[in-house]
Amino acid sequence: MRLSKKNLSDLSRGAAFLGTGGGGDPYIGRLMVEQAIKNGHEVEIIDPTEIPDDCLVIPTAMMGAPTVLIEKIPKGDEACVSLKKLENFLGKKAFATMPIEIGGINSTIPLVVGASLNLPVIDADGMGRAFPELQMETFGVYGVSGTPMVITNERGETALIETKNNEMMEWLARGVTIRMGGASYIAEYPMTGAEVKRTSIPNTLTLAIKLGECIREARENHLNPFQEIINFLPKTPYSFGKIIFRGKIIDIFRETQSGFAKGKAKIEGIGEWKNIMEIEIQNENLIAKVNGKIKAMVPDLICIFETETAEPLTTETLRYGQRVTVMGVSVPKIMKTKEALEVFGPQAFGIKEEFISIEDL
Amino acid sequence: MRLSKKNLSDLSRGAAFLGTGGGGDPYIGRLMVEQAIKNGHEVEIIDPTEIPDDCLVIPTAMMGAPTVLIEKIPKGDEACVSLKKLENFLGKKAFATMPIEIGGINSTIPLVVGASLNLPVIDADGMGRAFPELQMETFGVYGVSGTPMVITNERGETALIETKNNEMMEWLARGVTIRMGGASYIAEYPMTGAEVKRTSIPNTLTLAIKLGECIREARENHLNPFQEIINFLPKTPYSFGKIIFRGKIIDIFRETQSGFAKGKAKIEGIGEWKNIMEIEIQNENLIAKVNGKIKAMVPDLICIFETETAEPLTTETLRYGQRVTVMGVSVPKIMKTKEALEVFGPQAFGIKEEFISIEDL
Repeated sequence: MRLSKKNLSDLSRGAAFLGTGGGGDPYIGRLMVEQAIKNGHEVEIIDPTEIPDDCLVIPTAMMGAPTVLIEKIPKGDEACVSLKKLENFLGKKAFATMPIEIGGINSTIPLVVGASLNLPVIDADGMGRAFPELQMETFGVYGVSGTPMVITNERGETALIETKNNEMMEWLARGVTIRMGGASYIAEYPMTGAEVKRTSIPNTLTLAIKLGECIREARENHLNPFQEIINFLPKTPYSFGKIIFRGKIIDIFRETQSGFAKGKAKIEGIGEWKNIMEIEIQNENLIAKVNGKIKAMVPDLICIFETETAEPLTTETLRYGQRVTVMGVSVPKIMKTKEALEVFGPQAFGIKEEFISIEDL
Repeated sequence: MRLSKKNLSDLSRGAAFLGTGGGGDPYIGRLMVEQAIKNGHEVEIIDPTEIPDDCLVIPTAMMGAPTVLIEKIPKGDEACVSLKKLENFLGKKAFATMPIEIGGINSTIPLVVGASLNLPVIDADGMGRAFPELQMETFGVYGVSGTPMVITNERGETALIETKNNEMMEWLARGVTIRMGGASYIAEYPMTGAEVKRTSIPNTLTLAIKLGECIREARENHLNPFQEIINFLPKTPYSFGKIIFRGKIIDIFRETQSGFAKGKAKIEGIGEWKNIMEIEIQNENLIAKVNGKIKAMVPDLICIFETETAEPLTTETLRYGQRVTVMGVSVPKIMKTKEALEVFGPQAFGIKEEFISIEDL
């Protein structure tokens, strides 16, 4: 499908939803794609089943703390430079690019790359949401090497990294990103079409568009957007969603630490919702508790919306006094296998409690 | 010339002298070259005038804090991996390697590379001493780009960096080195033979051997090694040396900070030497003062010797109670031009005072 302007606005809303608080400000990403389209480029989204098994696919993304991104905005061609450098190093042209995560700006960066370099963008991603670290991609969980990978800054300065494992890639790439000022643009996990089909979460770009549509249409038709989302989710691999809290943000602590946006939000219940919900953050919302009792936990989605508009909020835009609604959403099965939970389950974030799916909480 | 075992032991002593406290433990580097020679390799040292103008030269070195190096010893082939990766990237074979600095382990790393890869080592370097940062090379001072450059760790993991200027190369490479555990091995400033001739400090490898010889022969002949060095220096571009203090180390403060070994040594005078000398350290000895009065300053050499043996000491081996002699040595003119002092004069290290040559102090 060819991406339209309407799609794009739905996509950026849906991506903020699937980003579970992370992935960076989708507004900036949307402006970048709009600019590319304005410059006469087109964005072609293709289904993963349509790509040849032996083609080369190079995913592209922004790396860094979302809090940095809103002050240090991209020049625009950084991710393209990363992809071209990686192509040169591999001695092979990419057939397509794709998102590494379907969250915030990272669902739109590959669209900018696709438009600028005239490459199709595969309708799939490597996280099924947003995660803060590069080894937390289903590509890696299911055996693809993240390196060689390239990092580029706004001055076109680059680092090409090769490591023995994806944790070391994350460690070195994060170090470079921090020294590039806390935000950079990457091309990583170069892989074959067959690997994309085997290891990615399919159809998440179009899912994000549909989720955005769902919220927009509910608003236009004066329906309850939350209920519309909850009704829509069972038709997707994200089979279940429920509202887990509603209230007012009474405290937000946030700092940029080791290249991540880390923090905690406290929400005081309103109406039927009693007590205080605490949400821990590392770029994304990781775990939500009320009175020490877990209400939702990573890798399930914890989505914070503005109550009034049902606009999904990224963690860096949370602020004192906001009226918010928190929804927990179950993620696809491929993200809850033993291998997957080892890489991006609660323990990967230093959380002691074992993972319990939102359906069982 | 072909390097002999005797040369090697003289070289490592002379390199510790020229290293002005830095460059990393020469003992480890000496063992590495000895091992290479034991494995049947040979080390061929050639004069810079002997290389073709259009050949490719790739300098190699260890990067990091000398304090880390003595605990995290190299596997051995890291710098070779860096050189090979850079050759592959450039699509051209290196004609020779050479030191980036004539100090400590970094005068011997290129010998290991030369022996292992069967490349001659050019008798010249890019600092004429040791300096802590990568932009502080005469190659860069006189217009050569430090990048593309490659960093390798003991597991063969690599980062290939390309930047717009050499300060940014240092900044990113230091970040990677820190994340590699504080010590890494690099290939940088790839350049032509003509550039080597134009920008390097010539004949410093053989000079280090001669300085080592000078100390060894003085010991063997029961002469005063300090006086022998002072007599020898005027025959070299390091035209002048004098003893600036003698005493006992009464305090040594050292920490590994931002990837550097930073600190301060205090020496209490003995005999005719009154008061206390304070020496500031960033990998190398930067400035020596007595009662706030400058006795020697970077880029001139501040060399600390064990008084009893005239063994040159690197900063990480200084310890409380050591009886030491401090010598100031004037560096070649190419290192004291306006351009050079801008890059590695006192101000580059946050020292307020303008540079005054040791002859004038």
